[in-house]
Amino acid sequence: MNRPAGSQTSGSPLARVRVVLSHTSHPGNLGAAARAMKTMGLSRLVLVNPKRFPDDEAVARAAGAEDILAQAEVCCSLDAALADCAFACAVSARHRNLGPPALSARLAASEMLARAGEGEVALLFGNETAGLSNAEVQRCQRTVFIPANPDYSSLNLAAAVQLLCYELRLAAFAGCPPLVTRAVPFASPPASHQEQQLFYEHLERVMVSSGFLDPQRPRRLLPKLRRLFGRAELERDEINILRGLLDALERQLSGRRQ
Amino acid sequence: MNRPAGSQTSGSPLARVRVVLSHTSHPGNLGAAARAMKTMGLSRLVLVNPKRFPDDEAVARAAGAEDILAQAEVCCSLDAALADCAFACAVSARHRNLGPPALSARLAASEMLARAGEGEVALLFGNETAGLSNAEVQRCQRTVFIPANPDYSSLNLAAAVQLLCYELRLAAFAGCPPLVTRAVPFASPPASHQEQQLFYEHLERVMVSSGFLDPQRPRRLLPKLRRLFGRAELERDEINILRGLLDALERQLSGRRQ
Repeated sequence: MNRPAGSQTSGSPLARVRVVLSHTSHPGNLGAAARAMKTMGLSRLVLVNPKRFPDDEAVARAAGAEDILAQAEVCCSLDAALADCAFACAVSARHRNLGPPALSARLAASEMLARAGEGEVALLFGNETAGLSNAEVQRCQRTVFIPANPDYSSLNLAAAVQLLCYELRLAAFAGCPPLVTRAVPFASPPASHQEQQLFYEHLERVMVSSGFLDPQRPRRLLPKLRRLFGRAELERDEINILRGLLDALERQLSGRRQ
Repeated sequence: MNRPAGSQTSGSPLARVRVVLSHTSHPGNLGAAARAMKTMGLSRLVLVNPKRFPDDEAVARAAGAEDILAQAEVCCSLDAALADCAFACAVSARHRNLGPPALSARLAASEMLARAGEGEVALLFGNETAGLSNAEVQRCQRTVFIPANPDYSSLNLAAAVQLLCYELRLAAFAGCPPLVTRAVPFASPPASHQEQQLFYEHLERVMVSSGFLDPQRPRRLLPKLRRLFGRAELERDEINILRGLLDALERQLSGRRQ
């Protein structure tokens, strides 16, 4: 199989990871799986004997990931889907007596990425109801389990694809993928130490002149307020606002005294 | 809000984490979110002004997690949903200028679990199309981002719930949740050193008698096979099988020589 042109993952090891869905019953799950893949930067989808494909419901659930569906390759056997892969992982909630070694999703993602540095790798998901057959699992080098609730471990197919692709993405970027949002927080420069001290002195004056703070019995009020504002790591603009308020209060207080 | 009776998560900090879905449009997503929660051992679902609830589509997509839907509490405001929470995290793909500090899903899950040791915590998801309003985000102590593909970061609502609940589960069990499957691998006792040596000697005999191995020109064949079998960490039954095969081969070879 050739890598689809224009894949947003080319250059990343993620580009060498294909998601193989075997004998999927519900076309909606094909679309939802495509969407899940694309959100995590994967693009290579291979379908082994899907019950209905192409299908409108798949497109509807893809919600913007129709390109993944359009590029999907349909194979009539798992062997064809895995033909050029050196390493394949079978996602399964069931233990297989004669299956390959089992890894958790997180560890499997790390190993898959490492193997993707050497060649093509595959991540295999079975039918919604029956899962993967033993014959399918035995074609893989690892089984992968999602550490789910032992009392109810039935993840939706697309949800399982989402989790594994998420772990692959985090593994690909060593836990630090590029952010969705370029975080430019609302911020003026942090207030300097002197600006902070002037603020605290201003605050103290107002507290005293308001009668709230008795300098003879301070009751640790100022240290408590310093702790609060210190934790907030005040910015210059914020201090300007606070001191503007304190100015206004002082004017009122001195006016009343006149 | 009272904890639902019979929650499979009671006793775990997960029992103090509620998933709050605000203004959800599609009832199918409510069911899928309930299923996602249950697979990860969460059970407390709170719905703020859902468009349609209860609804047959929600039940259909819950697929065995109907109990989570049945126990779900419906609130008419976010403030009501968060009333008894000391800590709330808003899941959002967008950066908010005046929002609370932002954490990745993994770090947020750790912090939520730590806070859940002290009191009730909430994980908030917005409407499928519009997401969360600024007013909603500002009622939370953290924003949470899923490190998605910057070119397509649109996770399905239930997929986002699945990812966060998965991270919460892993955080709750410090990365090692109890396994879904009690792994009792197919295994006989490991082969003893002597059993292995007898096997290698047997193998060598057969290799020589087959003509494949020339003792005068061994070409490192035996060390290479030892390496292979050594890596496999042979079990007693496996050696019995291999030696049964070697026996059969020897019989054939000696028969032919007669």
